[in-house]
Amino acid sequence: MKSLGIGLIGTGFMGKAHALAFGAAKAIMGDVPDSHLTVLCDTPADKAAQMADQFGFAHATDDWKSLVTNPDVDIVSITTPNTLHFDMAIAAIKAGKHVYCEKPLALTLDQAREMRDTARAAGVKTMVGYNYIKNPAFTHACRLVQSGEIGDIVHFRGWVDEDYQADPSLPWTWRAKLSDAGLGALGDLGCHLVSMAYGLVGPIESLIADMQTVHATRPLADGTGRANVENEDTASALVRFANGVQGSLSTSRSAWGRKNRLAWEVHGTKGMICFDQERMNELQIYCNTGDTSQQGFTTILTGPEHPPYGQFCPAPGHQLGFNDLKVIEATALLRAIRDNHAAYPDFDHAYEFEKTIHAIAQSARDGLRVSLSDL
Amino acid sequence: MKSLGIGLIGTGFMGKAHALAFGAAKAIMGDVPDSHLTVLCDTPADKAAQMADQFGFAHATDDWKSLVTNPDVDIVSITTPNTLHFDMAIAAIKAGKHVYCEKPLALTLDQAREMRDTARAAGVKTMVGYNYIKNPAFTHACRLVQSGEIGDIVHFRGWVDEDYQADPSLPWTWRAKLSDAGLGALGDLGCHLVSMAYGLVGPIESLIADMQTVHATRPLADGTGRANVENEDTASALVRFANGVQGSLSTSRSAWGRKNRLAWEVHGTKGMICFDQERMNELQIYCNTGDTSQQGFTTILTGPEHPPYGQFCPAPGHQLGFNDLKVIEATALLRAIRDNHAAYPDFDHAYEFEKTIHAIAQSARDGLRVSLSDL
Amino acid sequence: MKSLGIGLIGTGFMGKAHALAFGAAKAIMGDVPDSHLTVLCDTPADKAAQMADQFGFAHATDDWKSLVTNPDVDIVSITTPNTLHFDMAIAAIKAGKHVYCEKPLALTLDQAREMRDTARAAGVKTMVGYNYIKNPAFTHACRLVQSGEIGDIVHFRGWVDEDYQADPSLPWTWRAKLSDAGLGALGDLGCHLVSMAYGLVGPIESLIADMQTVHATRPLADGTGRANVENEDTASALVRFANGVQGSLSTSRSAWGRKNRLAWEVHGTKGMICFDQERMNELQIYCNTGDTSQQGFTTILTGPEHPPYGQFCPAPGHQLGFNDLKVIEATALLRAIRDNHAAYPDFDHAYEFEKTIHAIAQSARDGLRVSLSDL
Amino acid sequence: MKSLGIGLIGTGFMGKAHALAFGAAKAIMGDVPDSHLTVLCDTPADKAAQMADQFGFAHATDDWKSLVTNPDVDIVSITTPNTLHFDMAIAAIKAGKHVYCEKPLALTLDQAREMRDTARAAGVKTMVGYNYIKNPAFTHACRLVQSGEIGDIVHFRGWVDEDYQADPSLPWTWRAKLSDAGLGALGDLGCHLVSMAYGLVGPIESLIADMQTVHATRPLADGTGRANVENEDTASALVRFANGVQGSLSTSRSAWGRKNRLAWEVHGTKGMICFDQERMNELQIYCNTGDTSQQGFTTILTGPEHPPYGQFCPAPGHQLGFNDLKVIEATALLRAIRDNHAAYPDFDHAYEFEKTIHAIAQSARDGLRVSLSDL
Repeated sequence: MKSLGIGLIGTGFMGKAHALAFGAAKAIMGDVPDSHLTVLCDTPADKAAQMADQFGFAHATDDWKSLVTNPDVDIVSITTPNTLHFDMAIAAIKAGKHVYCEKPLALTLDQAREMRDTARAAGVKTMVGYNYIKNPAFTHACRLVQSGEIGDIVHFRGWVDEDYQADPSLPWTWRAKLSDAGLGALGDLGCHLVSMAYGLVGPIESLIADMQTVHATRPLADGTGRANVENEDTASALVRFANGVQGSLSTSRSAWGRKNRLAWEVHGTKGMICFDQERMNELQIYCNTGDTSQQGFTTILTGPEHPPYGQFCPAPGHQLGFNDLKVIEATALLRAIRDNHAAYPDFDHAYEFEKTIHAIAQSARDGLRVSLSDL
Repeated sequence: MKSLGIGLIGTGFMGKAHALAFGAAKAIMGDVPDSHLTVLCDTPADKAAQMADQFGFAHATDDWKSLVTNPDVDIVSITTPNTLHFDMAIAAIKAGKHVYCEKPLALTLDQAREMRDTARAAGVKTMVGYNYIKNPAFTHACRLVQSGEIGDIVHFRGWVDEDYQADPSLPWTWRAKLSDAGLGALGDLGCHLVSMAYGLVGPIESLIADMQTVHATRPLADGTGRANVENEDTASALVRFANGVQGSLSTSRSAWGRKNRLAWEVHGTKGMICFDQERMNELQIYCNTGDTSQQGFTTILTGPEHPPYGQFCPAPGHQLGFNDLKVIEATALLRAIRDNHAAYPDFDHAYEFEKTIHAIAQSARDGLRVSLSDL
Repeated sequence: MKSLGIGLIGTGFMGKAHALAFGAAKAIMGDVPDSHLTVLCDTPADKAAQMADQFGFAHATDDWKSLVTNPDVDIVSITTPNTLHFDMAIAAIKAGKHVYCEKPLALTLDQAREMRDTARAAGVKTMVGYNYIKNPAFTHACRLVQSGEIGDIVHFRGWVDEDYQADPSLPWTWRAKLSDAGLGALGDLGCHLVSMAYGLVGPIESLIADMQTVHATRPLADGTGRANVENEDTASALVRFANGVQGSLSTSRSAWGRKNRLAWEVHGTKGMICFDQERMNELQIYCNTGDTSQQGFTTILTGPEHPPYGQFCPAPGHQLGFNDLKVIEATALLRAIRDNHAAYPDFDHAYEFEKTIHAIAQSARDGLRVSLSDL
Repeated sequence: MKSLGIGLIGTGFMGKAHALAFGAAKAIMGDVPDSHLTVLCDTPADKAAQMADQFGFAHATDDWKSLVTNPDVDIVSITTPNTLHFDMAIAAIKAGKHVYCEKPLALTLDQAREMRDTARAAGVKTMVGYNYIKNPAFTHACRLVQSGEIGDIVHFRGWVDEDYQADPSLPWTWRAKLSDAGLGALGDLGCHLVSMAYGLVGPIESLIADMQTVHATRPLADGTGRANVENEDTASALVRFANGVQGSLSTSRSAWGRKNRLAWEVHGTKGMICFDQERMNELQIYCNTGDTSQQGFTTILTGPEHPPYGQFCPAPGHQLGFNDLKVIEATALLRAIRDNHAAYPDFDHAYEFEKTIHAIAQSARDGLRVSLSDL
């Protein structure tokens, strides 16, 4: 198979993470098709050139439209602000490229659906940057659930909190504007939680929700007054999964002290598993087996027995980091292209995940239960 | 002031706890009116006599009606199964006794209201056994909230989970029967969480909820078949407090591994406080103060600076236990009688707490938002 | 059996704890001989009278010598400063009383030996207040070790730290004076650690040690200058147990943030157990059994399956507190008297424990390995 | 500056880590001289070729001697078994190459000294793979100590434990042979702890130690019998630092459940800092400042304010992993070469670290205090 050319749009947090991931995937995983960093896009052009040098891309551009049609590009990585995903992804797909897009797919569910449908029609491979579901600790938890280790699943609770909007004195930014950011905490954070709930329990059927803008206005950066915060700081939902399990999901971007608290607990008839991304190399599990005087939550440190941890490090407890998750993600896309199967999570899955956050917002606005099949 | 005579009904978990609490209150607290253990009631009579000897009561009886009218009894402690609280409390109040009743007040909100009204009319002092809100860690958290240490409160989340009904093979008991137990997890556990939310954030105004009977039937102990579980194993609610704060409450009696996980987090504009009763001598607090590179959750171990811890032990970190909370509770009742003020939480407060759990059950049944003022 | 009369000397931290323990032992444990609080001694007399009223003693005195010879006293509890233990215990034993003495037995090993020998000769029952070895979590750990749950023991490490002498600005007190306090951190704290090592691994055969006075002088409280600190703030030892196990013990009274960190880990050929008194209701255990991908440290919350926890509370995870440990200790003494067997730990055991701390001090002074059989 | 050619010997755990580190250093750090992966050495040749393809090296060889003299190689990375470090490093230095060598430098202190002296004489830059001291959490702790945040340092305790030799049934390997492995737990693990103690407190002046071979023999893999374990499974030392601080160091390779427990606590006159590599993105700090009722250990999650974390990820709490530490380490070497200053830790520092583990072994053998200046 020929080496796959990578075209990356964006050089921020996720842009760097994509560049690193493609750069390291084969060295770490071995069994991965070759890829090479073809062209990097950012604006202005000199920034693109500088970052291309740093990241190791052969070319730089400030014109994403040329990137997505560049014949040397096989995979387009989209790591730009959320408003731009739609146009870029559609253009890339129409140019026949495989697409690796950061979450959420788009600002609206309609756009997300169109992205999904366009990709389906084109037959390209897609991948959406849900990061955390690639964590060996998470996939181990999924395997435990599927193997019946904790019995039948009966309940799920999840939270995803950060504090980047906790400070009332922070200036107003585009994040607070519906037309630029779309959803607030739900779009930034909530969809990650949904992706984990989906992996552990399955699809959500209906829900009822509430949400709140904690800081109704914020000061303008230029000191000329205050502007409205148009989207939610917190949201919570009571959910019913298709398999009958009940549960709850909560998110806040104003939760002081939480830096990446993407946490959940899944209750089964024989045990419970708990996880917190802030200790991403650990899993807590309780099983009702053996002498009850010895029962308790066991803290598992991930290691080579939780693949693909061992590809990074043969020694347990030595820890993976956030960027390693992107390597696993990029690897999955590269292999999906090589082996001609769907990647996980692709635009189809991401659409399902994101349907839930839009349903939460709708229920919170209307005060009524929302069935996801009605969206 | 003359020594107050204690009449205790029940010799189980809470019966012993009440006996110990009255026995130790003065020795520990010093500034407490004298009391003495007058009469203990249980059935059959020989069990009552045996436990009276063990607990140190002067007399024993198998007739609670004689106890509540015994002229040597000033305080009636009711620690019997929940169905019996109503009759006993009403009778004791009508006999002019102060009443120390375990939670929940009654099976139905109507009964609870009648208990409250009867006590109000009689002018006796009442106390309800909410235990955990007497924990020095909890009252310290309340003081921190009230002093503005974490700014304005913006969100609240709480959970209260145990696993005593987690095992599907456990036989059916009265706990599963509406007419005997009333609510399930909400009555056993949920009301504790409400009492904590109330202390930290205040009264709840409205809510929307969902609940589930995880194990729909259970085997009859006599092996003759299975019977229905009539009340909820889990319940969750999205709540709005009177002061505008949003939050969520969840409870499960089928949560493997949780032994007394009465936990919450209260989010403020300047910080967050977290607590878990399974580590009842600890409090977690994050404040957005000082150098951000040093910020994090601080684990406070309770000590003499968190009164009344120092009455139990002058050394920090040496730990209080569950029974110590009942000493603080009994002390509050004894002092309220001496000083002629309302105890906390009395039947008025307990009625408010319990209104919430009935509102959760109603909302879960109807699928609609419930305003607590409508109950 | 007639009710045993308790004579208690001292009304501080431990005095109150003894009074509470005797007051609650039968109510909690049931199967305990009757006892009654006969006479309380403190100075001045009016303080003794006041505390006797608070604690529930029938009589008060400021003359400990009359207490130890009082014919209505069967058990003498000694909770005074360490310098006084020797005279009081010897007098009580010679008066034929059973003795419940706080640790350490005495300032010097010679005195401790004489106390032991006198008690042996008199045939009275003795108990020494080592508190922490009565914790159900600890005794469960000992049972696990003895049952081979973690295989053969191969290593032990322990620490006992507090911060009551961490602040350099604290004024000089009697604690800093050899003739009043004897050993420093070793006497206050270190002997507790030894008592736990003994229970888990057995007697220590030899050791080599180092120690340090961190704060060489302290300001006099009256502002007239500074005085020398004559005993150790920290001490550490490398120990060899009689059974060949190696290990280490460390203590500090100047360890900021540690409130009661009496912690250890015991390494076996099949697993490890860890404990920290600051979370006294928890035990950590790792066993090399089952699927290695599921292995990790399990956090056991104590409950009724860890006797005598269930006597205090039938519900797991509800937590015992420090004072509860003294109830277990007092119960052991009362039963030993009734059943005419040695209590644990009695003066014999305490002498063995305390030999180790004196050996540590001697090795640290001389820089040489000390064999305990040479002391 | 021309791009620096990397010659890497070894393709195991550390070989891969070096390859990844050089591959990612510039992309992550930006301000790093260019480097390229020139030649990879392993045996047999086809394995070298295969891994060169996977890791992205231009050439492969099975002859390390040709690698160290290859004119296109500027930096020689040595990640082979410890017995081979000496010959390879000496040859590389003599060929004028900069050397990045894994720890420990050599099996004996004499060899380590010769390596150091040879590097000094040649004026090449060296770096030794001590990994953990590059952790932003660790360097933050060092800055806190140096800034006086916890006052004067008064005590240090450290442990480094794993369980790769805990199972008695594991077959005998070269690790158990003095002539192949040199020291046991001290060489594998203990030197890491020393490197941390050095950074936090400074050089050790003298010590007294004990050590033990827990599993005296192990079964031969071929089933023909058992062979002796010639080096230590555990070692412990009481140390005195040059600045008068006392402390202790312990290590075990037979500590069940410990996967990478490189942990320490440093005690100061104003506070304490604690760390555990198994939670490598966290730091615990207690400061005696502010209201004592609010004091406790604060858990800091590393983030952009703990450089160079922000180079990996702009969001706090997202976690670095083990391999990221090697990127920081490789960056330090590349910059040292560019800027012509010594890297940290170079052969000089490593020699100092490793002197301590040899001193521990000597003291344990002789039973006497060892002054490091005598080695």
